[in-house]
Amino acid sequence: MAGPKKMIIDTDPGIDDAMAIFVALNSPEVTVIGLTTIYGNVYTTLATRNALHLLEVAGRSDIPVAEGSHVTITQGTKLRIADFVHGTDGLGNQNFPPPKGKPIKQSAAEFLVEQANLYPGEVSVVALGPLTNIALAIQLDSNFTKNVGEIVILGGAFSVNGNVNPAAEANIFGDPDAADIVFTSGANILAVGINVTHQVVMTDGDRDKLAKASGKFAEYLCKILEVYFSYHREAYCTKGVYLHDPTALLAAVHPSLLTYTEGAVRVQTNGITRGLTLFDNKQKRFGEVTEWSGKPSVKVAVTVDAPKIVKLVMDRLMFS
Amino acid sequence: MAGPKKMIIDTDPGIDDAMAIFVALNSPEVTVIGLTTIYGNVYTTLATRNALHLLEVAGRSDIPVAEGSHVTITQGTKLRIADFVHGTDGLGNQNFPPPKGKPIKQSAAEFLVEQANLYPGEVSVVALGPLTNIALAIQLDSNFTKNVGEIVILGGAFSVNGNVNPAAEANIFGDPDAADIVFTSGANILAVGINVTHQVVMTDGDRDKLAKASGKFAEYLCKILEVYFSYHREAYCTKGVYLHDPTALLAAVHPSLLTYTEGAVRVQTNGITRGLTLFDNKQKRFGEVTEWSGKPSVKVAVTVDAPKIVKLVMDRLMFS
Repeated sequence: MAGPKKMIIDTDPGIDDAMAIFVALNSPEVTVIGLTTIYGNVYTTLATRNALHLLEVAGRSDIPVAEGSHVTITQGTKLRIADFVHGTDGLGNQNFPPPKGKPIKQSAAEFLVEQANLYPGEVSVVALGPLTNIALAIQLDSNFTKNVGEIVILGGAFSVNGNVNPAAEANIFGDPDAADIVFTSGANILAVGINVTHQVVMTDGDRDKLAKASGKFAEYLCKILEVYFSYHREAYCTKGVYLHDPTALLAAVHPSLLTYTEGAVRVQTNGITRGLTLFDNKQKRFGEVTEWSGKPSVKVAVTVDAPKIVKLVMDRLMFS
Repeated sequence: MAGPKKMIIDTDPGIDDAMAIFVALNSPEVTVIGLTTIYGNVYTTLATRNALHLLEVAGRSDIPVAEGSHVTITQGTKLRIADFVHGTDGLGNQNFPPPKGKPIKQSAAEFLVEQANLYPGEVSVVALGPLTNIALAIQLDSNFTKNVGEIVILGGAFSVNGNVNPAAEANIFGDPDAADIVFTSGANILAVGINVTHQVVMTDGDRDKLAKASGKFAEYLCKILEVYFSYHREAYCTKGVYLHDPTALLAAVHPSLLTYTEGAVRVQTNGITRGLTLFDNKQKRFGEVTEWSGKPSVKVAVTVDAPKIVKLVMDRLMFS
């Protein structure tokens, strides 16, 4: 396998999605071959608009955008949209003009299946929102889990409290049924949960540095970051923001920046802990068959080299 | 409040229940004013028989035994009996003769309510099995949660895998509905989960010491311990056994041997993570009302002075 890694980013932009997309576009180790869109930080229609807009800001309208699902996989769930984190437009309430480009005709799931078929074992999918599109791709083509190179999931709260409620992290909570399908699909999966991303903080000082840089990404981001910083001050009493999406993105670019453990992950799909991710560490030999027994192993990130991640993010956002 | 602490042990003996009961009877800091029985390691009928038997072994038939519930609080759940951990008789398959004594007429819940009323704020309930009796006491008397001094619960798996399956610890799994009632009742609660008790191990070496001691408790326990050690070798690949029940018991006798955190705990009552205990650490200010919002805080044990616990257990079992 020669040349840079082929990457599809499944995204709901989203301020930290914008950062992750810009970091990816400035990473020579990878070639972004498409964006697929999903609800989460915004509704899917707006996610598609924002994805096209961000590619135009980056001067990369050559990259296709495939629109994803507007509803959860079971279609009965009310969507939870985190506009209070990213602004009602998903990008810091800046009233950006509509993009000139349009999404391709294929759905996100169709595009994911097609690209995985075209380049078997070579495509990295970085999933930054609820996992509906990925689950739909799995249902669309039984070979998708084999053809896709890897799926790096920003999602889950492993052995820690969630960020939607004490049980659930936002992306998994967004479509728990889809998440359980993906985690148990047998694909090559790395889950990067908030137990890891909460260690990776962009400080006020980093933001000041970004403001002094002259690159187009830095300039753009400094316009939209205030909403995200303000949310973190309110919700977490922190002077700084969690780099969720850029961390998951860099986990795909430089896997050695994280360590992980391996085992089955299941998602609770109902009740008060709906959206909870539960990893079986296999330390006990259970006498009885459990809901984790025989399920494929996935990788779950455990530690992260946070200073290096922050430095990489800063470098790739400042010099563009 | 003068004199030793008044203690009621709610128990499903059980090999480590036997150890905990013997430790309590040899602890001058507390007066055991009754045992109440519950299913778990054995069915309730056998738990009552074993409780009476253990008191006779100790020469303490003066202590009343009140029989508890034979079914979960919702009465629809099939009981899970852990006879594979403790032997089919709950006490190491030793064919002990039936006890001479009988339980009192009162049910466990009635006895708990009565004693808490008699000695408001003075009774420590140490719950070593599923929480059905405690939940029934709460339902029987709305003042029980105020009258009871404290409830020390051996139960839960906080931020770690369970021991029934990856999600649930055995006592909470035994009656998740009852457990959620107890945790949200407002009583003064300390939960000691397997995240703590798995740190407290009686080794093969400790067992050898016990075998050389001449006290009646040591002599009795050495007969019944093999089943428990054998289960741990098989399930955990450990040469030693977890001192679940004695740790919870000593948490009531010497609270300073543990540290704890405080917050709301809820129990998942259905789905694949049924029986999961989830603690809200209150580090995030959630924008939305959650199922944990406004629920009373309980104490959840975080660290334990394991060497001191093991030493206390050994001392109180060897010299009797």
